Amino acid sequence: MGPADMSKSKAIDFTVTMRKFDHNTLGKDHIMRTRAAVAVQAGKPLEVMDVNLDGPRDGEVLVEMKATGICHTDEFTLSGADPEGLFPAILGHEGAGVVVDVGPGVTSLKKGDHVIPLYTPECRECEYCLNPKTNLCQSIRSTQGQGLMPDGTSRFSTLDGDPILHYMGCSTFANHSVMPEIALAKVRDDAPFDKICYIGCGVTTGIGAVINTAKVEIGSRAIVFGLGGIGLNVIQGLRLAGADQIVGVDLNPSKVEMATRFGMTDFVNPSEIDGDLVAYLVALTKGGADYTFDATGNVGVMRTALEAAHKGWGESIIIGVAPAGAEISTRPFQLVTGRSWRGTAFGGARGRTDVPKIVDWYMDGKIEIDPMITHTMGLEDINKGFDLMHAGESIRSVVVY
Amino acid sequence: MGPADMSKSKAIDFTVTMRKFDHNTLGKDHIMRTRAAVAVQAGKPLEVMDVNLDGPRDGEVLVEMKATGICHTDEFTLSGADPEGLFPAILGHEGAGVVVDVGPGVTSLKKGDHVIPLYTPECRECEYCLNPKTNLCQSIRSTQGQGLMPDGTSRFSTLDGDPILHYMGCSTFANHSVMPEIALAKVRDDAPFDKICYIGCGVTTGIGAVINTAKVEIGSRAIVFGLGGIGLNVIQGLRLAGADQIVGVDLNPSKVEMATRFGMTDFVNPSEIDGDLVAYLVALTKGGADYTFDATGNVGVMRTALEAAHKGWGESIIIGVAPAGAEISTRPFQLVTGRSWRGTAFGGARGRTDVPKIVDWYMDGKIEIDPMITHTMGLEDINKGFDLMHAGESIRSVVVY
Repeated sequence: MGPADMSKSKAIDFTVTMRKFDHNTLGKDHIMRTRAAVAVQAGKPLEVMDVNLDGPRDGEVLVEMKATGICHTDEFTLSGADPEGLFPAILGHEGAGVVVDVGPGVTSLKKGDHVIPLYTPECRECEYCLNPKTNLCQSIRSTQGQGLMPDGTSRFSTLDGDPILHYMGCSTFANHSVMPEIALAKVRDDAPFDKICYIGCGVTTGIGAVINTAKVEIGSRAIVFGLGGIGLNVIQGLRLAGADQIVGVDLNPSKVEMATRFGMTDFVNPSEIDGDLVAYLVALTKGGADYTFDATGNVGVMRTALEAAHKGWGESIIIGVAPAGAEISTRPFQLVTGRSWRGTAFGGARGRTDVPKIVDWYMDGKIEIDPMITHTMGLEDINKGFDLMHAGESIRSVVVY
Repeated sequence: MGPADMSKSKAIDFTVTMRKFDHNTLGKDHIMRTRAAVAVQAGKPLEVMDVNLDGPRDGEVLVEMKATGICHTDEFTLSGADPEGLFPAILGHEGAGVVVDVGPGVTSLKKGDHVIPLYTPECRECEYCLNPKTNLCQSIRSTQGQGLMPDGTSRFSTLDGDPILHYMGCSTFANHSVMPEIALAKVRDDAPFDKICYIGCGVTTGIGAVINTAKVEIGSRAIVFGLGGIGLNVIQGLRLAGADQIVGVDLNPSKVEMATRFGMTDFVNPSEIDGDLVAYLVALTKGGADYTFDATGNVGVMRTALEAAHKGWGESIIIGVAPAGAEISTRPFQLVTGRSWRGTAFGGARGRTDVPKIVDWYMDGKIEIDPMITHTMGLEDINKGFDLMHAGESIRSVVVY
């Protein structure tokens, strides 16, 4: 007597059907079935299955996901390395889709709107949103960290009724998901879902680190450590910002071609440098870089990045996520002589405000995404995307629903 | 047959006498004798003695010192802990005096001008001076670091002719000293030397860290670690900047009275806190401080200072000089969630531009100096000043010539 399996449905108006279904499970108004890749436990492949999805409550929105990227952060959690990882959960935080229903009180979105989920929401009302120095909206932080919607419950459950947790407030590895209104950016409806989903994390993180966090000026010299997806987006952010010199550092020379395409002017392979890498980079950048970016998550690289920044004014921005317990260190003299050590989350972007602009930049040709989407697959094959990431064969794999 | 002992002379025009003296030592034009406290070797008390002082060369200025503070940095070098310390040298870098002669090419100073020596010069021409993000003029950096004037020689020597090194380009522990024109700030002539000498380092370092480096806004919450001379000046800088909450942290409760006088609103003695100091400070400042300042030089305290800064936007400024080889560390998560780790040298001040303004602030009553000058003495008693520092009995001892 459950609702029909809607997992493959593309019908926009299926929620109407859902509402007609009379049920009383947990006292919820609407429940549907959708298809999802569930992280059942740490270190195991995702399991693609049908799950129940409760309808949107106050301030929430039901989204039909059209595409989702597979990000290293999903892998970090799935692997068990994430000390805050919770299971079972539906991972995924880099999606794009269409609004199919809205809960009571939702005013800024309506059925049919194209949206990108935001793991960093933008309520525009909390102490953080009202401080121009940060993008880290805290309004739903505690429940999001517990894998729950703001009312402290999950919308997902197994067909047996056992709860399944949300992830980063998004859970884009489900064909349908429920998110708070403040965690959805409304974007133009002519942008391709299978490309702009990447703006939900990687593109914005990399470009935003340059534009929002570092505020790189025209003519700057910069060094980018790590030429994966984030590093490439930092590079195109630097090109967009008018940097004069964009040095890429990676142990893998196969990264050169793509990085050059995105704007890299100099490549350094640390394994080919005799002597001190910092000294080499300082010389290459005529005294140190104005801005350096760590996109590796390696704390040793983070130190190199700081120390390769220019005396007097160089800023080093940490983007990568380090393993649990890992610490950065340096001599305080490095800071006293004018270097700054900073970090960025979601590229310092306020999602509802900034993500639509980045979609426009993509549609206007100011930034590129297509070459970075190296693989696409259906949800049933999502574990192949993780395999490609492990093998270093993909920049970004995207699941298309 | 040497020049007369001028060490106690207060005559402004004695250099005329000097010029009449016919000598050919090292081919120099003018040589005089002055009184100085010489750091003969690391770990030994200073030795007060007559020394020879060569006259100013191109772009240099001869200054009769009227007063000098004794700073922890002098002690750091004298103790032997400073890995860059050189001996024998004439220490001291916190002076005030009067121009008694100028070398060829000097245009901005003339005999009779009141000046404060600058260990961080301001040439207004180098890459650093032309970058608004830094105050670290590099034009004479390499020779200054070697204890020499910009032409690579020393003006000081023993009566036997053995060279004595300069220190931080100032050597204010001599009754007369030679400095580059770009290392002297011209100040008003009605300001008392025995007070404004402190602006040559401590006052500017503390106030400047607030105003130039942190750029603290009205209404900010701040925490100052270490309530010695620098810490007190940070506190009065915060008061000047309009901070709402100024928390002082020190293990010594005897610091409370003076710190309160300078603007401290809350005192925290870490030895009296049960549990985690960071958590206590975050609660006290309603989520963390907008700005924290380390004025201890202790790398463990520097970490506490960073982590007590507010998530999203808190900035932590390192002022203190750490022991050689000591390193700061933290989890990168602290930075990724929006804290910044920075440092400051000479309070981010451009000395020739900013020091005269701070002298004005003192004369206008905007800042206080007098209560911090706890002891004065003659040059012959300079080692007592170091003893008082070691005993923690002084805030600042000043030698009056």
